[in-house]
Amino acid sequence: MSGPNHSCGVAGIASASDVVSSLQKSLMIIQHRGQESAGITVFDKGELQTVRDNGLVHAVLTDESIAHLRGKVGVGHVRYSTASSKSVLNAQPMTVGTGFGAVAVAHNGDITNYDELVGGYKARGASFLTESDSELVAAVLGKHMALHNDPVKAMKGMMGELEGSFALVIMINDRLFGMRDPYGLMPLCIGGIEGGHIIVSESAAVDALNGTFIRDVAPGEIVEVMHDRFVPHQAVTHRHKAHCMFEWVYFARPDSVIDGREVYDVRKRIGEILAKECPADVDMIMPIPDSGRAHAIGFSIASGIQYEEGFMKNRFAERTFILPDQSERELAVSMKMNPIKSTVKGKRMVIVDDSIVRGTTLKKLISMLRVAGAKEVHVRVGSPPVVAPCYYGVDMRSRDQFVANGHTLDEVRDIIGADSLGYISIEGLIAAIGKPEGDLCLGCVNGKYPTRIPGEAERFQSTLMSDF
Amino acid sequence: MSGPNHSCGVAGIASASDVVSSLQKSLMIIQHRGQESAGITVFDKGELQTVRDNGLVHAVLTDESIAHLRGKVGVGHVRYSTASSKSVLNAQPMTVGTGFGAVAVAHNGDITNYDELVGGYKARGASFLTESDSELVAAVLGKHMALHNDPVKAMKGMMGELEGSFALVIMINDRLFGMRDPYGLMPLCIGGIEGGHIIVSESAAVDALNGTFIRDVAPGEIVEVMHDRFVPHQAVTHRHKAHCMFEWVYFARPDSVIDGREVYDVRKRIGEILAKECPADVDMIMPIPDSGRAHAIGFSIASGIQYEEGFMKNRFAERTFILPDQSERELAVSMKMNPIKSTVKGKRMVIVDDSIVRGTTLKKLISMLRVAGAKEVHVRVGSPPVVAPCYYGVDMRSRDQFVANGHTLDEVRDIIGADSLGYISIEGLIAAIGKPEGDLCLGCVNGKYPTRIPGEAERFQSTLMSDF
Amino acid sequence: MSGPNHSCGVAGIASASDVVSSLQKSLMIIQHRGQESAGITVFDKGELQTVRDNGLVHAVLTDESIAHLRGKVGVGHVRYSTASSKSVLNAQPMTVGTGFGAVAVAHNGDITNYDELVGGYKARGASFLTESDSELVAAVLGKHMALHNDPVKAMKGMMGELEGSFALVIMINDRLFGMRDPYGLMPLCIGGIEGGHIIVSESAAVDALNGTFIRDVAPGEIVEVMHDRFVPHQAVTHRHKAHCMFEWVYFARPDSVIDGREVYDVRKRIGEILAKECPADVDMIMPIPDSGRAHAIGFSIASGIQYEEGFMKNRFAERTFILPDQSERELAVSMKMNPIKSTVKGKRMVIVDDSIVRGTTLKKLISMLRVAGAKEVHVRVGSPPVVAPCYYGVDMRSRDQFVANGHTLDEVRDIIGADSLGYISIEGLIAAIGKPEGDLCLGCVNGKYPTRIPGEAERFQSTLMSDF
Amino acid sequence: MSGPNHSCGVAGIASASDVVSSLQKSLMIIQHRGQESAGITVFDKGELQTVRDNGLVHAVLTDESIAHLRGKVGVGHVRYSTASSKSVLNAQPMTVGTGFGAVAVAHNGDITNYDELVGGYKARGASFLTESDSELVAAVLGKHMALHNDPVKAMKGMMGELEGSFALVIMINDRLFGMRDPYGLMPLCIGGIEGGHIIVSESAAVDALNGTFIRDVAPGEIVEVMHDRFVPHQAVTHRHKAHCMFEWVYFARPDSVIDGREVYDVRKRIGEILAKECPADVDMIMPIPDSGRAHAIGFSIASGIQYEEGFMKNRFAERTFILPDQSERELAVSMKMNPIKSTVKGKRMVIVDDSIVRGTTLKKLISMLRVAGAKEVHVRVGSPPVVAPCYYGVDMRSRDQFVANGHTLDEVRDIIGADSLGYISIEGLIAAIGKPEGDLCLGCVNGKYPTRIPGEAERFQSTLMSDF
Repeated sequence: MSGPNHSCGVAGIASASDVVSSLQKSLMIIQHRGQESAGITVFDKGELQTVRDNGLVHAVLTDESIAHLRGKVGVGHVRYSTASSKSVLNAQPMTVGTGFGAVAVAHNGDITNYDELVGGYKARGASFLTESDSELVAAVLGKHMALHNDPVKAMKGMMGELEGSFALVIMINDRLFGMRDPYGLMPLCIGGIEGGHIIVSESAAVDALNGTFIRDVAPGEIVEVMHDRFVPHQAVTHRHKAHCMFEWVYFARPDSVIDGREVYDVRKRIGEILAKECPADVDMIMPIPDSGRAHAIGFSIASGIQYEEGFMKNRFAERTFILPDQSERELAVSMKMNPIKSTVKGKRMVIVDDSIVRGTTLKKLISMLRVAGAKEVHVRVGSPPVVAPCYYGVDMRSRDQFVANGHTLDEVRDIIGADSLGYISIEGLIAAIGKPEGDLCLGCVNGKYPTRIPGEAERFQSTLMSDF
Repeated sequence: MSGPNHSCGVAGIASASDVVSSLQKSLMIIQHRGQESAGITVFDKGELQTVRDNGLVHAVLTDESIAHLRGKVGVGHVRYSTASSKSVLNAQPMTVGTGFGAVAVAHNGDITNYDELVGGYKARGASFLTESDSELVAAVLGKHMALHNDPVKAMKGMMGELEGSFALVIMINDRLFGMRDPYGLMPLCIGGIEGGHIIVSESAAVDALNGTFIRDVAPGEIVEVMHDRFVPHQAVTHRHKAHCMFEWVYFARPDSVIDGREVYDVRKRIGEILAKECPADVDMIMPIPDSGRAHAIGFSIASGIQYEEGFMKNRFAERTFILPDQSERELAVSMKMNPIKSTVKGKRMVIVDDSIVRGTTLKKLISMLRVAGAKEVHVRVGSPPVVAPCYYGVDMRSRDQFVANGHTLDEVRDIIGADSLGYISIEGLIAAIGKPEGDLCLGCVNGKYPTRIPGEAERFQSTLMSDF
Repeated sequence: MSGPNHSCGVAGIASASDVVSSLQKSLMIIQHRGQESAGITVFDKGELQTVRDNGLVHAVLTDESIAHLRGKVGVGHVRYSTASSKSVLNAQPMTVGTGFGAVAVAHNGDITNYDELVGGYKARGASFLTESDSELVAAVLGKHMALHNDPVKAMKGMMGELEGSFALVIMINDRLFGMRDPYGLMPLCIGGIEGGHIIVSESAAVDALNGTFIRDVAPGEIVEVMHDRFVPHQAVTHRHKAHCMFEWVYFARPDSVIDGREVYDVRKRIGEILAKECPADVDMIMPIPDSGRAHAIGFSIASGIQYEEGFMKNRFAERTFILPDQSERELAVSMKMNPIKSTVKGKRMVIVDDSIVRGTTLKKLISMLRVAGAKEVHVRVGSPPVVAPCYYGVDMRSRDQFVANGHTLDEVRDIIGADSLGYISIEGLIAAIGKPEGDLCLGCVNGKYPTRIPGEAERFQSTLMSDF
Repeated sequence: MSGPNHSCGVAGIASASDVVSSLQKSLMIIQHRGQESAGITVFDKGELQTVRDNGLVHAVLTDESIAHLRGKVGVGHVRYSTASSKSVLNAQPMTVGTGFGAVAVAHNGDITNYDELVGGYKARGASFLTESDSELVAAVLGKHMALHNDPVKAMKGMMGELEGSFALVIMINDRLFGMRDPYGLMPLCIGGIEGGHIIVSESAAVDALNGTFIRDVAPGEIVEVMHDRFVPHQAVTHRHKAHCMFEWVYFARPDSVIDGREVYDVRKRIGEILAKECPADVDMIMPIPDSGRAHAIGFSIASGIQYEEGFMKNRFAERTFILPDQSERELAVSMKMNPIKSTVKGKRMVIVDDSIVRGTTLKKLISMLRVAGAKEVHVRVGSPPVVAPCYYGVDMRSRDQFVANGHTLDEVRDIIGADSLGYISIEGLIAAIGKPEGDLCLGCVNGKYPTRIPGEAERFQSTLMSDF
């Protein structure tokens, strides 16, 4: 609940039959990746048709609003805005007319050299109607299409220009492509569905369409997806990957499988390791719903201490409290969560959360537990202290907002008012995920980034082994 | 999740300072009791001011929409329509001008002799602009005020005319009253808050306002609530009560305390008794989120079998899926819930739900579990089979909709596709609630109703011991 | 343009076929009588169906919104609110359930003894949900139906209780009635249309339905309208009538015929008489569009001076400027009207308007003419000075707002900045209308009212010759 | 009323103080030039701020919606869509980021070589998010800015690339420019207002701001507008001009002065010449309101026959009837207009309209006059028969829609059901306008176009005498 906000979710489907309804469902399934705008673009009778607007999927893509959409290939997008502008102009998919046809772009991630690239294009006379990465992607694609007149070659060219994180779904007329940045920062996977294929941010969308998960798109890979097959093209191969660890900790749905690791299981394992690294002598283990449940169950299993749902979460909270200002957040917490007095009264407890960013919500929750009669409140956190910004699409840009920055563990414990505080270690987290440290992006917890960021440490020398 | 829909929530506050914001918060906390319309009426400068409309509290009662409301006494309402009409005319609080002042009525329940009473009033020349119980309540109140010219006497008169269930909050100019039907079918409680008192459907609202729970309003009691005190008047005393058992099973928030029983604890106890009455040899216990969690934890404790969150519930589900037609419900289930494959694959499991009405959702969920690889799926239900209609405000009017009606246990098990099926017994439920059978309304599970209902068995002879 | 605002328009149709579309059209035609809310109620399959909301007819009664309405009898209403409350609760037709069926009431006018009557009903225990005359009408009707159980007798009873102005269209189940107050203050007429009959505020609506005007409803008359005939009942007969003179001067459409007098012709005749009563030595005659055109043409004919359209009226003005505050009105004038420089420059002119209430608009227009180079601006007004309030439904309640009150003719001329100012005389107006003075309501220009108004002079002793 | 639809209106203001409110007013005044979308862009604190949306000015640019806009320079736009797409993406002003700053473009007209130009840009890798001329204008401007790095030089370059009609208001950061196509097809003028200057489609907007008309922008001229002065640059000078004659006949407001000719006076003169060219022996002259009034007054003056307002036009018609389908138009006519029976009955009349395109409205009006008892109906038209498409921004693209195409005068008379029909001659129209034939665009009435149009006759050889 107290976690950071993610940037976007993308989906594309090619099928022997109409894809509109399946795209709509896919976006509902990945709604958690972006609640600011939603959109679908399909290719039909030689042109693109798009419905996109600010709002949630169910509000923007109603049965009425999409009734006129038809197409056997299409892309979809849900957006959480990391940029300042919330203009509906930025709603995606972004659609442009080009010399090689109508193009739709759906993007998840952050192009870190956006200013550089846009500056270059503008200097050559180009103008930009939006401030979205997607319009830049279209411009870069256009340049390379003008050079190569071949989508795959053009996308390989793009892969060489774009820096940062990107999971892209691109439609050029009726051809559908997916591509993932060279380090695989953002997730993207391929599934088989009845009559076709889907390319989407999370595998749970494949399940919801009663489809079959095929595989993740590889970092640096371009995939052309057709209704009856898909054709992969490896554009860039780095020795290491840099999967965002927060996908497993918090962002992704627990029922998704990201780069070969089941999210729910990773979270339970985080809880188990946390119970070993930071044990506590308490009467019960409580999650912060909804995101802390799997971690708490793991903690309960490893510790042998009873799991209890000691917080009541208002099931209308997502509707009710998505809008309030920063200043109203603390107040909103009490509308959103209420401790169950009979459960917590007189008890010593561990509460488990996925992460601490600002710590304000947690502070309020602990205070509510004390008012309800809790005897001891011990906080255990499923990710190491967040101390550095994310430049790849997560809404954590400023160091100032991190409570762990410039405070010792004990100070943070005192700030939030806990009896004890324990974070999982970086090693513990890596073990829970089950991937080599070298294949994860841990930038926000260790300050080392996979790509160059002005003023930040770069994790490794870029050693490209591209195929062009 | 699969439970029936409730009718309404009510709140009233009298304070030394402005009550608008507190009423708004109270309604957010009891939003689960009605999502169709919301409203607040306050008394200020000699007249009532009202904001009410169709929609959720956060949408109807925005900071902007209520900015002009001021008052030290007010009432609020959230409504789930049991009647056909969804006209905004029926939005509550209902406000009327009368010979004794401006009156606002907020009602939870169903007046079972509505037709009789309305018919009588119409025959004497009265006309009704709405088909809401509240307008009838105003008419009955008006008649008795014309006779007695005293609110308490008039409400005692009302208590003698109205049959069925009613938890009423009534404001007459700046005087605030609560009253509860003679059997206490619907909940209503009193709390002390900073500077005043609240009278509200559920105690969780008192907590959310940092208030102190005082006591439940007694069945048949009228309470006048003032900022600095409250004055009770016992209008009718029956030997028995008839609290709706579904409040503990499903309706009320787990953090509320209803008529002296903590809801979360009752639910856990239901799970424990269920584990004893209907044990199962399985690998894990899974709740149907969100409503089955406490029951499942109780089952896990009593059985010693591991609790797991095997379903991922879409946290936007409340927004997304509140509207679909009956025919779209099955489809909607897969948008709302997804089994976590890695957790359920190859496992034998108990899934715990609060109740079964139609059984369609459960059938779909079980089928999804099987697709995800579940080896055995055993269903355990926290309430006895629902076989009879509710006439007191719950949206279960027709026997035809109950899957348990006309089917044996084994047949229901086969219909939903479970490996085994177990309901808690009526005795078990009574024990879990911890009240005498005679003090509960079990009409929907045993067909015996506390008040006369044409064509239905009446539970007991009315033995009034009223004070007038 | 600068005239007062009217209160309402009403319509009812009984037909052998569906009436919804015809009602919708009728209301569009009488839209000028009320722009605040619009509504239609039809009787179908034993019950009333209603669509009503705040807004203009085309916005409230869209083809979509009324698609579900069906019925062979129905009533419609457009409302301009004279009361403070703009609540959608007050939108008409008002529909109520009664002991004798479902009733819909559409009302034009003002019940002057509203407070007295409502007070009496409240004292007997009745409550009122709205502050609209129509709910009172329903209550009065209900009382008399309870006594007589016959609609015509009940309406005769109503005629004895209600004071003030009322043109009512009332539907009791599938029976449709029209009635007009004893002095005929508000217009109401009957027309034959294909397959049925219409009863409506203005005859232009009959034309727009390609129907045939039959006759005006007589003052004090009740008419039952059926698809194949209509049955009149004379309830009250006064020696004199009191038709509102402003209907001919300003309110009614120029293409309507009110109580036997063609509106456009009356206006031209006003202009002709005005030219004789207040001649001017000028180069051209200009109307204030749109309402002053017919008067100006009459003036031009009688004076032999050239007619010119020297003001450009923004044809979006009705949309654009309906909302501004009083304080923004002067500014709004320049958005709404612009003098045509080449036409007015260096010219002496008469500008003709229907009436002067506040005079602020006229003052601004004259100043604009001077800026545009007009040499002389002479104002001629198609109604005598408005000096007294209207109690019958026109939005002129306070003496303070009338510029003619407490100012001499010369003072008013100076206030508005004209070179000369001339009003038609009361005699001239009476002559132009062509009815005896005794049959007109001239209350706002001579302060004598047809009914008792506390504190105002009554025009004649009520000499009822009712038939009961 | 029955005239064609225009494409757009533009405005730009540079002032020593805030321009937002003045822009809002200007757009209200030129609202008749486009009702589909409206928008304002201002430059403030180094960036552009824009409010634009589909809808009328008063609905899009409300006091609330523009409250946050501030700026001493800004542009505004109202749009009537000639293209198929009504996407809000096409709402103007179009704003783009470029290498030389933030640019806003407001465009009136049609770029006839749009496809050619866009094709060329796309071939070089550019992509286009919209199908609006304005994005193309931005791209062309961008190219020339990259070459010259000087706005005036760049606009001169644009003038050489763009074909067709264009009146452009362009803001580059805080510099404001106006430019008009080499033939001056679309109007554009400069005015002085308090504290600054305005550049706008019609002079009436200058009047409404209490400003002073300075002069028209010359064809082929670029003007930089500053708060305290303006700097003209003549980019292209053609021997002839080609002002659209329909501006005087119908499009422009009667209170505007276009290229030195007062619109109202031209219209009156048209009526006078028409009366001489096509006299009629009738009892009265009637305009089709609102657009035919000035023509009818001229006809009345020249013929000495009485002017009458025989049609009542519903003053809510603009709101009510802007949406209906083609198929509903005939029906809508009777909602919009009603003959005044007492005026037309038994009379012989001329009805004067500005133009005939399809003739369907006129046919319906004549039929209504006959039903109302008109004895003879003679139609006189203020423009010659429209027989050829307009390629410069007017919504008359297909020859099939013109009733005058392929029908003789007598046939058209019979189609519309008139007793006689007379159009003004081309010579008469030219005389009324008072400009040489060579300086007018008469393409739609003589089929000769000032610029090359594939498949159409070109009026004259382009003989450029540009200054670069």
